[in-house]
Amino acid sequence: MKRILVIGAGLSTPSLIKYLLDQSEQQNWKVVVGDFSKEMAEKRVDGHPNGDAIQFDVMNDVQRAEETKKSDIVISMLPARLHHLMAKCCIRFSKDMVTASYVSPEVKEFHKEAKEKGIVLLNEIGLDPGIDHMSAMEVIDRLKGKGGKLTAFRSYTGGLVAPKYDNNPWNYKFTWNPRNVVLAGQGGAQFIHNGMYKHIPYHKVFSRVQQLHVNGYGEFEGYPNRDSLKYRGEYGIDDIPTMFRGTIRRPGYSKTWEALVQLGVTDDSYVLENSENLTYRDFVNSFLKYERVIPVEKKLADYVGFAEDSFEMYKLRWLGLFDDTKIGLKNATPAQILQKILEEKWQLDSDDKDMIVMQHKFEYVIDGGKKEITSSMVVEGKDNVHTAMAQTVGLPVGIAAKLLLTDVINPTGVRMPTAKRIYDPVLKELEEYGIKFTEKEREIPMNGNGNGNGTENGNGQY
Amino acid sequence: MKRILVIGAGLSTPSLIKYLLDQSEQQNWKVVVGDFSKEMAEKRVDGHPNGDAIQFDVMNDVQRAEETKKSDIVISMLPARLHHLMAKCCIRFSKDMVTASYVSPEVKEFHKEAKEKGIVLLNEIGLDPGIDHMSAMEVIDRLKGKGGKLTAFRSYTGGLVAPKYDNNPWNYKFTWNPRNVVLAGQGGAQFIHNGMYKHIPYHKVFSRVQQLHVNGYGEFEGYPNRDSLKYRGEYGIDDIPTMFRGTIRRPGYSKTWEALVQLGVTDDSYVLENSENLTYRDFVNSFLKYERVIPVEKKLADYVGFAEDSFEMYKLRWLGLFDDTKIGLKNATPAQILQKILEEKWQLDSDDKDMIVMQHKFEYVIDGGKKEITSSMVVEGKDNVHTAMAQTVGLPVGIAAKLLLTDVINPTGVRMPTAKRIYDPVLKELEEYGIKFTEKEREIPMNGNGNGNGTENGNGQY
Repeated sequence: MKRILVIGAGLSTPSLIKYLLDQSEQQNWKVVVGDFSKEMAEKRVDGHPNGDAIQFDVMNDVQRAEETKKSDIVISMLPARLHHLMAKCCIRFSKDMVTASYVSPEVKEFHKEAKEKGIVLLNEIGLDPGIDHMSAMEVIDRLKGKGGKLTAFRSYTGGLVAPKYDNNPWNYKFTWNPRNVVLAGQGGAQFIHNGMYKHIPYHKVFSRVQQLHVNGYGEFEGYPNRDSLKYRGEYGIDDIPTMFRGTIRRPGYSKTWEALVQLGVTDDSYVLENSENLTYRDFVNSFLKYERVIPVEKKLADYVGFAEDSFEMYKLRWLGLFDDTKIGLKNATPAQILQKILEEKWQLDSDDKDMIVMQHKFEYVIDGGKKEITSSMVVEGKDNVHTAMAQTVGLPVGIAAKLLLTDVINPTGVRMPTAKRIYDPVLKELEEYGIKFTEKEREIPMNGNGNGNGTENGNGQY
Repeated sequence: MKRILVIGAGLSTPSLIKYLLDQSEQQNWKVVVGDFSKEMAEKRVDGHPNGDAIQFDVMNDVQRAEETKKSDIVISMLPARLHHLMAKCCIRFSKDMVTASYVSPEVKEFHKEAKEKGIVLLNEIGLDPGIDHMSAMEVIDRLKGKGGKLTAFRSYTGGLVAPKYDNNPWNYKFTWNPRNVVLAGQGGAQFIHNGMYKHIPYHKVFSRVQQLHVNGYGEFEGYPNRDSLKYRGEYGIDDIPTMFRGTIRRPGYSKTWEALVQLGVTDDSYVLENSENLTYRDFVNSFLKYERVIPVEKKLADYVGFAEDSFEMYKLRWLGLFDDTKIGLKNATPAQILQKILEEKWQLDSDDKDMIVMQHKFEYVIDGGKKEITSSMVVEGKDNVHTAMAQTVGLPVGIAAKLLLTDVINPTGVRMPTAKRIYDPVLKELEEYGIKFTEKEREIPMNGNGNGNGTENGNGQY
């Protein structure tokens, strides 16, 4: 009987743990789930005969070593900054490890040792990072294989509310960490277009969106991520002239959000004096010019360039930004106050379901012609436990663990799932769970442009 | 014969050193000027019989101690972060020190020791900080003395080019550190208006200007400084409902500068790859969306909301931003590249003269009525050595040194010139050098507003 140690039983783990337990009988697995809260671990295991819930403190060196030693594989669903603690144990006892997180610099350090010991620390095999890498590489390798030359790669991912429950004017609810949503974009953005780097300061990120369409789901938009360039090496497309990564929202979200950024209410760098006793209306007004007789609503509309009767202003009013409600948070930053206001309005109801949307666009030249492949995936949540986020983050991790335990794959070192022998079986099994991409291909004129974003560079100046 | 040690012989020191040397015969002073460059020190002393130029290395502990010990007073014109080294010596040998810089935390630490030794470390007695404190306190103390209650204090300072030499469309040239001008505003701004804190994010600072008029000099504008609140305690006006500090430019400067901020070209946080070989036009274009056939000029105009034929766009074209000139700077940040472009256009010619403008506005209630005092100072440079900046920074320092040496004033501890017994004689003597304020007073309606900035708060919402 093989022993799987899953560390962390948070919101991203239910589908992962269910996957492992569902297969445990057939595979002869013991699934041990450890969390700082034993109760959380028990909830995930839910009395399954092949499951075991333990209280686990990642800072406890002895426990970390003992549990790792006893296991055949470790799945770390801890916050990314803690993975290296488990990684060190895995190196020591020669155990494979799987995570859904970005490779941290500390984990990267273990590459040589892991290779020497013949084990793998397999990271970035969740959703984003994870399914994005695998699905992109599948297309990139296929195009290369048939002699195509990739000229543009654009990739978008977003966590949204499923259409049936999408009943507010922002077409958005918090399906994941609200703080990250409030602070999104703060490093600005950079990408490359026709061989030219493009830079966007934070306060303009949400004005530089691209339009998307997903069959059966309608229109979306994507605002640029901080760094669209970093996977060029890993993907083997160092010289690609156009590469863009973005975050998906429904159309119009970004334009209204940009107004909040321009107003300054997403700032997390200072604390408002007396924030507790200010009203939401005072809060907004503290970013606007004093005027004797002009209401806050009109001042804001003028400041950010919205018509007073615009839908954008309706969305801001709908948030309650102009209400006389007391903030009630002590020593809060503008971003913290805004998060509180948003949480009241963008909360998922208990019967709401979430949705993950991912879309890649590949432009490539082949046989003297130019084509575009659009590859799209939509996953809806099953309920408020097995959310789309939990499925798309957890299932690839679970599948990878199975492939490692059953010796279908045998990578070594610190790795991402960009190699065909890894992504192929993972993507294949994900399809059984409804996590799959739909492809459309079309020809585009050699000097034309796909979707309003030109891709040929007739004139370097523009 | 008393010995005055002046450390630092940079651009802000010529008028100071001339003042001391001019008085040295009558006062029986020896003026020793030390600089890391002995040549610079010699240039300032210019062979004066009571002057002495020495090579001085502030990091040399022995020299620092010896020179301080031999002197009766130390004037430190070093960069602010180095004053504490001289301050420590002054404490050790019980010598007074004068600086034109903000009190650093390290210098502040010496307050108790300085008091005990009966010496003063007198700081912030240049222009800004310096003349601003003294001239404001003179009015504030006067109003208090006659029973007035201050309801608003607004203060503006700016270094500009003198009107006769003001011959470019920005009405601006670099008269001081260009880097500070490029990075101005980056911390955002906060001030207080009618008892309500106001916050402005960086990208909006230059859209929140106030209009000014100075008799004989015409129109100006003031954009908000980072922190308008910090002197409330020092000025004894903790409860003032409205306080604003700003930087003076000619009208229109801020609106066009805001476009550069919105574009992102003032960012100093990352380096542009291949910056050396990009043209100015490429540089600007790297912040704009790709478009097949729309020129960079039009893209920029649309992006920042200017008409293509606007004066603002003319000012941007005039800078050469759209030229095909190579940048030629390796690994440069956007801010560094912009500074280079600006330095070519905003350079003072050798026969240009600079100008300092300062204006305070005080609103106060007295005898049931409300009044406004506008107090303005303009100083023009005499030449490119005795600039307005050198005069206004250096002369108050020199005067303060004289007042200390002649025992007219005897403050102790770490001080700013906010006490009447200090600012009175300094301001009086400054007048002899043409550095003086002109006052206008007018009555304003009790519920009216002075200059479009309302000051009564009929409704807390606005």
